[in-house]
Amino acid sequence: MATTNHNYDKLGAGYLFPEIARRAKAYAEKHPGIVLHRLGIGDTTQPLAPSVVKALQDAAARLGKTETYTGYGDYEGELFLREAIRDLYRERNVELGLDEIFASDGAKSDSGNIHAIFDADNVIAVQDPAYPVYVDTNVMAGRTESYNTVTGQYVGIVYMPCNEYNGFFPELPTEKVDLIYLCSPNNPTGVVATHEQLKRFVEYACRHKAVIIYDAAYSAFINNPSLPRSIYEVPNAKECAIEINSFSKSAGFTGVRLGWSVVPKSLVAVDAPAGKLNALWYRRQSTCFNGASNVVQYAGAAALSPVGRRECQITIDYYMQNARIIREGLKSLGIVCHGGDNAPYIWAKTPNGLRSWEFFDQLLEQANVVTTPGSGFGPSGEGYIRLSAFGHRDATQQAIAGIKSNLKFG
Amino acid sequence: MATTNHNYDKLGAGYLFPEIARRAKAYAEKHPGIVLHRLGIGDTTQPLAPSVVKALQDAAARLGKTETYTGYGDYEGELFLREAIRDLYRERNVELGLDEIFASDGAKSDSGNIHAIFDADNVIAVQDPAYPVYVDTNVMAGRTESYNTVTGQYVGIVYMPCNEYNGFFPELPTEKVDLIYLCSPNNPTGVVATHEQLKRFVEYACRHKAVIIYDAAYSAFINNPSLPRSIYEVPNAKECAIEINSFSKSAGFTGVRLGWSVVPKSLVAVDAPAGKLNALWYRRQSTCFNGASNVVQYAGAAALSPVGRRECQITIDYYMQNARIIREGLKSLGIVCHGGDNAPYIWAKTPNGLRSWEFFDQLLEQANVVTTPGSGFGPSGEGYIRLSAFGHRDATQQAIAGIKSNLKFG
Repeated sequence: MATTNHNYDKLGAGYLFPEIARRAKAYAEKHPGIVLHRLGIGDTTQPLAPSVVKALQDAAARLGKTETYTGYGDYEGELFLREAIRDLYRERNVELGLDEIFASDGAKSDSGNIHAIFDADNVIAVQDPAYPVYVDTNVMAGRTESYNTVTGQYVGIVYMPCNEYNGFFPELPTEKVDLIYLCSPNNPTGVVATHEQLKRFVEYACRHKAVIIYDAAYSAFINNPSLPRSIYEVPNAKECAIEINSFSKSAGFTGVRLGWSVVPKSLVAVDAPAGKLNALWYRRQSTCFNGASNVVQYAGAAALSPVGRRECQITIDYYMQNARIIREGLKSLGIVCHGGDNAPYIWAKTPNGLRSWEFFDQLLEQANVVTTPGSGFGPSGEGYIRLSAFGHRDATQQAIAGIKSNLKFG
Repeated sequence: MATTNHNYDKLGAGYLFPEIARRAKAYAEKHPGIVLHRLGIGDTTQPLAPSVVKALQDAAARLGKTETYTGYGDYEGELFLREAIRDLYRERNVELGLDEIFASDGAKSDSGNIHAIFDADNVIAVQDPAYPVYVDTNVMAGRTESYNTVTGQYVGIVYMPCNEYNGFFPELPTEKVDLIYLCSPNNPTGVVATHEQLKRFVEYACRHKAVIIYDAAYSAFINNPSLPRSIYEVPNAKECAIEINSFSKSAGFTGVRLGWSVVPKSLVAVDAPAGKLNALWYRRQSTCFNGASNVVQYAGAAALSPVGRRECQITIDYYMQNARIIREGLKSLGIVCHGGDNAPYIWAKTPNGLRSWEFFDQLLEQANVVTTPGSGFGPSGEGYIRLSAFGHRDATQQAIAGIKSNLKFG
């Protein structure tokens, strides 16, 4: 008699983005003819780079010929792709072994699966607010008690508040924690951790044999050369940190799907000598996954080629101009904004002390703009909304113009 | 202080195929100049169908244009692909809702992840021999005790022997089991379950509220129209069975990556009303996965189009001709073979009572042919090897000729 995973019953609500889509759809159906401007989900809108399109097409052609057809590749990704990723880190003076790099179908999969190589009783610490995948997958794996609807927190998870008082980067945890999820540039706040801030966490993790899961999916949006793009730019991070990255936003692969994780061989946990966590992740991936799509891996390598980098940078700059338009537009209304200078997200404080979903509804109904309520990312997100710079320019401009014209304050 | 998932320490050996690759590589390095013939891993060798190549290229071109670019798709797959999959089932008079079909990056991922929606204390039953992913992922999830090196079994898993006495299809379990993994056409034995055989398991599962996880990844290789291609051809299977399928072998997508699962809304478990298991799988996928690659989904739909089906059938027929060559060749040496008529695998009994790895080594060393030792699929696989029909024709012929010429029988 099969029984279902009862940990799923603890989940507080549906995954955030389907819920936003549901509300937006319901509103649109009630108001036929209106045009919704979507600044909610971080979904890319600009086309793939020409060199990426060509790489996909060439790879398809090769798979169509007997002489050049290939089947299964390496579970951890094709060598040419891992070499390209290694070279990307070298630009930041980070040297990685090719067997420390694992290509995957995306950072979401890796963020969602990485917990599986750790024991069930590890205590998880997350930034609050945070990308919901970190929390939800640990709830589903049974690392928490139920959801407390009053606090908006799961019992058993250590929430590290990120707010205007600490510059949206957390203090070190005061209680015992084992796995620490950090994301920089941060989703949702758009704030980037400094070397100094990361250094404190690396020192903490090395001292306590905690492991940092560092999500760098937005690192390509960092303009400021003094900010770290990888946690491995911090001394000793290879002894305590796993890094996850993505082609989704840097090369428009949200639908194409490609990402990678770095699990250094020097990484140690309390019961794992150097090399073991790397071996466990290889075992997990080789058992539950058959590698990222080969055509997509060629496309990823093209995106990391010199020509591909230049082409992708044009699109990154385009999105960052959107970010400026959003930030300046909201600021002109007196709305306090964070992020948006080295990240494609703007973290806007709701006016008049509105709750996140209240301001979400107000923006939807008065300006027909879809945003993401900050409270969906955790209790410290309450009173904020996230706006995404990944739209078309004209839609972004219209959205901001609509907010300026139609939003009724207080 | 992070600790690692100690369940991984229970795993008996490395995942089977890396171990085979390691032995083959070591042999080749010791004997420079030899040519290895690979009849081991089920890796496709024939090119993608022309309509599939075109679909990949057209999809890439569309993603290269602002007007036709798309980002995130539905977590469960694009509608056009799910419609094409639904139509495939309709040919067998099976009617599925589009929200019962979940596209993924492959049957391996789904086979490896599906257990997650069930509670940790479910008892797993597997065919013995079986595709290692079913067992290994449940070991990693903590549903077993350690590996018993004498029996070759994990304590806590119910092994259902498949042997020449029961026609390689198991008896009903006599002990309590909750999740039953069945694979037909079977990997590794190449034997296909009949309606009558599946009916017995469906009746058992409905009676005990057990859930069958039915792996139909090789269903496209069934020639005999009276054999079921889907478990849903059996009455009431939608109340007790999840079905997993793949484009890997039917359309050569081993490297391209695409598969699907069906989780019927009428499926029930002991603590789950109809609809809940479907909702749990949606929750799992939408939280840990961002959909299969969009370019690949277009390719999959092309493979299921009338033209694509005809083109793919040519390749399927090609592999099945290989299967005949292997089977007839081995039979001419007096080796007893099963499978290979409605499946791309031949399950050959080792001569002279050799153990699987012994015969593997003999074939490697005497005939330079790489096979898969049956014992790698479970203890009842001992005394067998699996041969794959997925090679090039000339390589397959050379391998069989080499075996005929060079194999020294006891």
